[in-house]
Amino acid sequence: MVASARWSRILFRMNLILLQPEEVQDCRAVLSDERAKHIRKVLKAEPGKELRIGLLNGPLGIGTVESVNVHEVVLNCIFEDTLPARPSVDLLLAMPRPKVLKRMWAQLAALGVGKIVLLRAEKVERYYFDSHVIDPDFYNKLLMEGLQQARCIHMPEVRIEPLFKPYIEDRFESEFSNHWKLLADPSGERRIRDFQSLENRRVLLAIGPEGGWTPYEVQMLKTRGFELIGMGDRILRTDTATIGLLSVLNERWSGS
Amino acid sequence: MVASARWSRILFRMNLILLQPEEVQDCRAVLSDERAKHIRKVLKAEPGKELRIGLLNGPLGIGTVESVNVHEVVLNCIFEDTLPARPSVDLLLAMPRPKVLKRMWAQLAALGVGKIVLLRAEKVERYYFDSHVIDPDFYNKLLMEGLQQARCIHMPEVRIEPLFKPYIEDRFESEFSNHWKLLADPSGERRIRDFQSLENRRVLLAIGPEGGWTPYEVQMLKTRGFELIGMGDRILRTDTATIGLLSVLNERWSGS
Repeated sequence: MVASARWSRILFRMNLILLQPEEVQDCRAVLSDERAKHIRKVLKAEPGKELRIGLLNGPLGIGTVESVNVHEVVLNCIFEDTLPARPSVDLLLAMPRPKVLKRMWAQLAALGVGKIVLLRAEKVERYYFDSHVIDPDFYNKLLMEGLQQARCIHMPEVRIEPLFKPYIEDRFESEFSNHWKLLADPSGERRIRDFQSLENRRVLLAIGPEGGWTPYEVQMLKTRGFELIGMGDRILRTDTATIGLLSVLNERWSGS
Repeated sequence: MVASARWSRILFRMNLILLQPEEVQDCRAVLSDERAKHIRKVLKAEPGKELRIGLLNGPLGIGTVESVNVHEVVLNCIFEDTLPARPSVDLLLAMPRPKVLKRMWAQLAALGVGKIVLLRAEKVERYYFDSHVIDPDFYNKLLMEGLQQARCIHMPEVRIEPLFKPYIEDRFESEFSNHWKLLADPSGERRIRDFQSLENRRVLLAIGPEGGWTPYEVQMLKTRGFELIGMGDRILRTDTATIGLLSVLNERWSGS
């Protein structure tokens, strides 16, 4: 009883059935994995039931259950004509401790991030980059979980950059030249509320390691156009600060 | 080598040494627990070094190390004349899954919350209230950790209310009559940004269980003065939504 209650609670988070483009052929999708189990056991869907679906990086839609059995669920899929707006924030994140990053993946996908660059900084331990939490097979599953829970279709693009200087000097500029760049740091006296307009530009939010950026790193990032911002007097953990700042950016500028 | 790096990283978060009022006598505090270990091993403090200290629910200050040895650290304490402003947000939180609540304690203290009422809602499993995560000995340690990391002194006041109706009908009104009451729900069309002024009132933020409030619960809370607010189209996990909304409230109205 307790076990089954727990299980349904965990699966409850799938508020959208997300489909890969190749899974949909002639408007039909045949599912046999966790999604099928969720449709059968949690949604208790019978033929005719309409479910919220989405195509990965594509439109949202409605999937009508054609058939359900213990092996598979067949959905008849109709998609909307328009694409949901792409998240307007990208993230330059000093590689967090693997345990922390593991918790963050689904939340980042749920909050909506276009691109995630995981960067080595001086106060990031080298061994963090040996962790399985930056293996695509591991994080893609968690990102999908976050998208399905939040009802989103935009899969964040993830890149790992284990060397700070060559990345910032050689590749950073071409990638983010037009972004409005914000560097979160306890020394930042301006806050996001102090900026009046984004001029429709994408935002790049940089979050440092738990020990903070070094003065050299702050300097390098400032010469690349970053402006320092703070969150008040409190010193927050990487994951708390990231969720908080993404929420503030979203509240301030996203469509209603 | 790796082990010690990990250990120091974990302890790094103590950005303030928090003292209980009874620990300070004649301006001196003698510490022999985790805080002493942190001062010795992470801060590597020697006599004469000045450390940031705070009195629980009292002023911030400076502690000058008088002596350090393997058994204890003696600090000479000087406190500021003024008290930091009390967090202006209280939280009415439908009891989250114990695993989620365990992760939330330190973050709630770090973000700053005056009072936390953990409430039973219909979609909250009864067995959540049997968990050790709502044992004061367990959560006070995590709240202290969050305060010391964020450099804050305000210990949230925690109350457990395992019955929705009697609490809302009999005790709620007298406790929160003057608060500006916000009920977070995916159906909420207004957002925090749409409200112009708080009129210096305290805020009570209500966050539902993962399955949402029932229509009856929403109705009950509305008759008690709650206004519905949303966070856009995304459906967020309890912990993500709580951190996000506390950050947005803090960004919008706290002093800079």
